[in-house]
Amino acid sequence: MDFDALFTDQLDQLKREGNYRYFAELERKCGKFPRAGNYKDGEVRDVTVWCSNDYLGMGQHPAVIAAMCEAVQRTGTGAGGTRNISGTNHDHLLLEAELADLHGKEAALLFTSGYVSNWAALSTLGSRLKDCVILSDAGNHASMIEGIRHSRATKVIWRHNDVKDLEAKLAALPADVPKIVAFESVYSMDGDIAPIRAIVDVAEKYGAMTYLDEVHAVGLYGPRGGGVSEQEGVADRITLIEGTLGKAFGVVGGYITGSAALCDFIRSFASGFIFTTALPPAVAAAARTSIAHLKVSDAERMQQRRQVARLRDALDRAGIPHMMNDSHIVPVMIKDPVKTRMLADYLMQEWDIYVQPINYPTVPKGTERLRFTPSPLHTDADIDHLMAALRTLWRQCALSHAVA
Amino acid sequence: MDFDALFTDQLDQLKREGNYRYFAELERKCGKFPRAGNYKDGEVRDVTVWCSNDYLGMGQHPAVIAAMCEAVQRTGTGAGGTRNISGTNHDHLLLEAELADLHGKEAALLFTSGYVSNWAALSTLGSRLKDCVILSDAGNHASMIEGIRHSRATKVIWRHNDVKDLEAKLAALPADVPKIVAFESVYSMDGDIAPIRAIVDVAEKYGAMTYLDEVHAVGLYGPRGGGVSEQEGVADRITLIEGTLGKAFGVVGGYITGSAALCDFIRSFASGFIFTTALPPAVAAAARTSIAHLKVSDAERMQQRRQVARLRDALDRAGIPHMMNDSHIVPVMIKDPVKTRMLADYLMQEWDIYVQPINYPTVPKGTERLRFTPSPLHTDADIDHLMAALRTLWRQCALSHAVA
Repeated sequence: MDFDALFTDQLDQLKREGNYRYFAELERKCGKFPRAGNYKDGEVRDVTVWCSNDYLGMGQHPAVIAAMCEAVQRTGTGAGGTRNISGTNHDHLLLEAELADLHGKEAALLFTSGYVSNWAALSTLGSRLKDCVILSDAGNHASMIEGIRHSRATKVIWRHNDVKDLEAKLAALPADVPKIVAFESVYSMDGDIAPIRAIVDVAEKYGAMTYLDEVHAVGLYGPRGGGVSEQEGVADRITLIEGTLGKAFGVVGGYITGSAALCDFIRSFASGFIFTTALPPAVAAAARTSIAHLKVSDAERMQQRRQVARLRDALDRAGIPHMMNDSHIVPVMIKDPVKTRMLADYLMQEWDIYVQPINYPTVPKGTERLRFTPSPLHTDADIDHLMAALRTLWRQCALSHAVA
Repeated sequence: MDFDALFTDQLDQLKREGNYRYFAELERKCGKFPRAGNYKDGEVRDVTVWCSNDYLGMGQHPAVIAAMCEAVQRTGTGAGGTRNISGTNHDHLLLEAELADLHGKEAALLFTSGYVSNWAALSTLGSRLKDCVILSDAGNHASMIEGIRHSRATKVIWRHNDVKDLEAKLAALPADVPKIVAFESVYSMDGDIAPIRAIVDVAEKYGAMTYLDEVHAVGLYGPRGGGVSEQEGVADRITLIEGTLGKAFGVVGGYITGSAALCDFIRSFASGFIFTTALPPAVAAAARTSIAHLKVSDAERMQQRRQVARLRDALDRAGIPHMMNDSHIVPVMIKDPVKTRMLADYLMQEWDIYVQPINYPTVPKGTERLRFTPSPLHTDADIDHLMAALRTLWRQCALSHAVA
């Protein structure tokens, strides 16, 4: 059987739809973020990255760099095993304590990624709590969807951020089955924020556990970077808060926090936690340093907000439509995969501006977009440069200014 | 609903069975492997680690350490995004080229872990190849089992390492459905090695694709560390070779290698690849240095084999039964979770020897064991010390010498 032909058929279909993905090859340059080298056709050119999830530039913070190098030199490059078999390092436990403290929970548990933390935690909860029903926001991330699917628990999807719909669906379920309300605080592609307090109110009313993904919020919201749940003062009412070390904290990895029993339960039963090599201790040390810094420093968050507001104002003045939201994510809708790629290619080639075209399956077909994530390290001049490019582009392409 | 009570009930059950897991808290010490600090009851004591999967001690190799620190200082601590959205770094592509070369394949694709590479690749292949049947060795790792389960493809389990059974099961399937024969080269807990050539012969006869997990073999077998498939000269006949950067290569991460179309297919469709932050470029740089070193240096492999043989001889002379196999893994069967933990606790407390008790679900219930992994850095004196401990233990505990 010609397997390559089977693969190529499906890839050709993606290409025909305009959904085939071309990765931009970058070289991050420590100390120069958001500038990076872009490798193309044997050349390397400096570009400005406008779509990074290193939201605060912590990946180049001197203290974080120093912590990682110190730990590499102290402990080596890897953990040497799964958490159970020789892989648990002192640095992991220090980080888990830091994370528990960040969210005001009894315990935390590290995973190799945010994706794995969602997938492993939800698949374990859904499969091991008898007759469990998972009520999942319609906008939830792929990692949550796959975890719920893997659990084979009953899944009920409620309309995105719609508390009334959630309540109707909770009310329709038997009182005595375990229920999990799974949702995110900041939705990464539209940048909208969940009505967390109202969701928690309803979940509590029906005795449901709450599972909150804060990956696009930790480090960024709340006085100590504890996420939107900290900002809204409801973290103590959330059963499980999930987060990442790979976005605002600038490193890599994922985690959950919650009661000691909850974390021990996931630790003891989750295949995706048990059967995998632990994160390098140096990654844990770097992440802990980043979290500790953002617990006491508000400067990065404040400057990010200033630059986000500045970009939004400039877009408004230029008549370039963008989705309004209360977060740091600025989506400019194009609604066609081929056009989105053309615009991104033009920005890269003519203006040294890198913004990845966002297409299916990251967003639904027909909602393709450019997604800008201004950081505290994007200067006013960077924003002016981006705006000059966008204004030129909007004129040249004769795209409707009312495209969104 | 009292969720903590539900969690605690299941944890109590584990405790009653002796299957509850206590992680040893270690501090790896770069340059001193296999020595590590062990944190317990507020004290730190030096112990010798006998169960690491940093099989060759590459996690403390000076060139690997230097590569990681250099890259952290050059690129920062994280990738800054998914591979699609600003996360693809030049270091990732260099590593993928190195991995493709290691296995003589057209292409390679990096994942955040070996677990994710198996789960993502198998779930994608199984779900996207219409009517696909996956023939899975009964001993396959949890990550493969979960990937196959997630794919919802038809699964046929063949008896562990039994080529006749595999052939019977292949022969019973319709000729025109896509078939994937999924297996490992070195099975981690028994240390036995698959008859790869015979499996490939049968798979080819029935037009099946071969999926080979080499995580416990890469770096360790074959003249360049390309695994058992390289050693046996059959790598070119395997459709997909999967491996890890977290064991013999001493860092963290996983990968697949195969045809360009195959890797592009997984790259384009695998949720677990698409929706997750890329590995830090520094991890990629460290892994590439480790792989490149083990491609040209045989010294670590040779010294490891010497120490493995030495430990086996010493066990034989002491009358301590162990499972024979052709790999570097030395399992001493105890067959009871409580006794296994007692022995491990005694070794740690009285002899400063750390070997994790291996229990369910890592191995089937009733096959609990101590699993020793001698490295090139375990000295003859380390082996003598371990043997003195084991001889004493076997006498004191009055365990039957014929326990296995």
